[in-house]
Amino acid sequence: MVFFAIFDQNGLNDLNAPNASNVFNDRTERYKAMIKADTPKSENITWHHSIVTKEDRERLLGQKGVTLWFTGLPQSGKSTLAIEVEKRLFEMGHITYILDGDNIRHGLNKNLGFSPEDREENIRRIGEVANLFRQAGIINMTAFISPYRADRQNARALAKEGEFIEIFCKCSLEVCENRDTKGLYKKARAGEIPEYTGISAPYEEPENPELTVETDQLTVEDGATKIISYLEKNGMIRKIEQISKSPSS
Amino acid sequence: MVFFAIFDQNGLNDLNAPNASNVFNDRTERYKAMIKADTPKSENITWHHSIVTKEDRERLLGQKGVTLWFTGLPQSGKSTLAIEVEKRLFEMGHITYILDGDNIRHGLNKNLGFSPEDREENIRRIGEVANLFRQAGIINMTAFISPYRADRQNARALAKEGEFIEIFCKCSLEVCENRDTKGLYKKARAGEIPEYTGISAPYEEPENPELTVETDQLTVEDGATKIISYLEKNGMIRKIEQISKSPSS
Repeated sequence: MVFFAIFDQNGLNDLNAPNASNVFNDRTERYKAMIKADTPKSENITWHHSIVTKEDRERLLGQKGVTLWFTGLPQSGKSTLAIEVEKRLFEMGHITYILDGDNIRHGLNKNLGFSPEDREENIRRIGEVANLFRQAGIINMTAFISPYRADRQNARALAKEGEFIEIFCKCSLEVCENRDTKGLYKKARAGEIPEYTGISAPYEEPENPELTVETDQLTVEDGATKIISYLEKNGMIRKIEQISKSPSS
Repeated sequence: MVFFAIFDQNGLNDLNAPNASNVFNDRTERYKAMIKADTPKSENITWHHSIVTKEDRERLLGQKGVTLWFTGLPQSGKSTLAIEVEKRLFEMGHITYILDGDNIRHGLNKNLGFSPEDREENIRRIGEVANLFRQAGIINMTAFISPYRADRQNARALAKEGEFIEIFCKCSLEVCENRDTKGLYKKARAGEIPEYTGISAPYEEPENPELTVETDQLTVEDGATKIISYLEKNGMIRKIEQISKSPSS
């Protein structure tokens, strides 16, 4: 039962207590004991009682299963920022996954186009997949324009309080248009792409995002730091100083 | 560079070498060093070079991102077996996730019915989500009847060789029908449910599944052991004896 004293339901902060650092060194034994403590002795018990929960996985991984929902104009830096955050979290030993156009539009959502209904269904499915990743205990990030408040609200509604972190990549249209690495703004201005967000289709700015990153003013590194500090402050990842003070470093 | 010597691309077996066990105790430092070794010194390098890969995540987790695709008649024990495997893998410190009717039919696929097209789309989406979880390095399990060979083949086609493990839950219709915990076979026999697999709709048995578990002959525990042994033998999880020989046990 000693493990429950250390790793209670809200126990991520406890992971950062000075005396807990050595416990990190023994994942397997820790969780063996945890499961034993959690499993009633009766042999008549059905398997339903030993289902592995989101909280179990979070304790195993030392992180919370949350969604970082990046939203913003095309070229506002959503993917760039997500990739930087992922790299930094991985360096800290955290498990993350990014859902973006590359892995979603060519896979799960390859049967969707760009009609209003299909755009809505696109974001709906992404919200559902993000929820599955949350349940799995993975810090997941979605990097899609997701221009409509209602669609983002629907994705948020699937999450528990605090587990959906909307990150507004705030960047002036001028800067986004100047970046235009794929030449899509130019095509949109020429009328070759209809309903291009920012040019011929609306972008509804978040009203109360958990975080705003001014990507036309901050470096990618500083933007990522802002996000990681938020995760740390809210007990979603291990504290940074704890890691650098690890006994084996 | 010492870390690459120990954790190469096919390095899971090396994790089980006697001298490697202590390395497990220091995830954070190990991966800090790994990333440093992987990052070119040039400051002009773009962030694309430091994208976290499936292989990176697999090294961090000490497991392979694979799919266990359970298939079989209704009541053949797919979910029961998956839950037992999950429990056992968690005890060993592995991260898994089960996709099943509960979390898929009420979420991602709640806009699908039971027409032939919708059934196909149901399995297609599940195959795509399983692929995302593989990329994330998670051992994922799907527990759906998935009665058609073609649909299962499509899901398999998204995976690399060896990363899609089809598990046939083989159980006589008689035994399945006797279990009938939800009373659905009875309703199907009474004609109240049209196109019920095994009664009024076909089930196409796998021709070359990676594993067959005779769920009308084995206990749940023995069935799970068969699956876990397969994963161990194929270097997808840490070796069981290594865990029990962990220096801190």
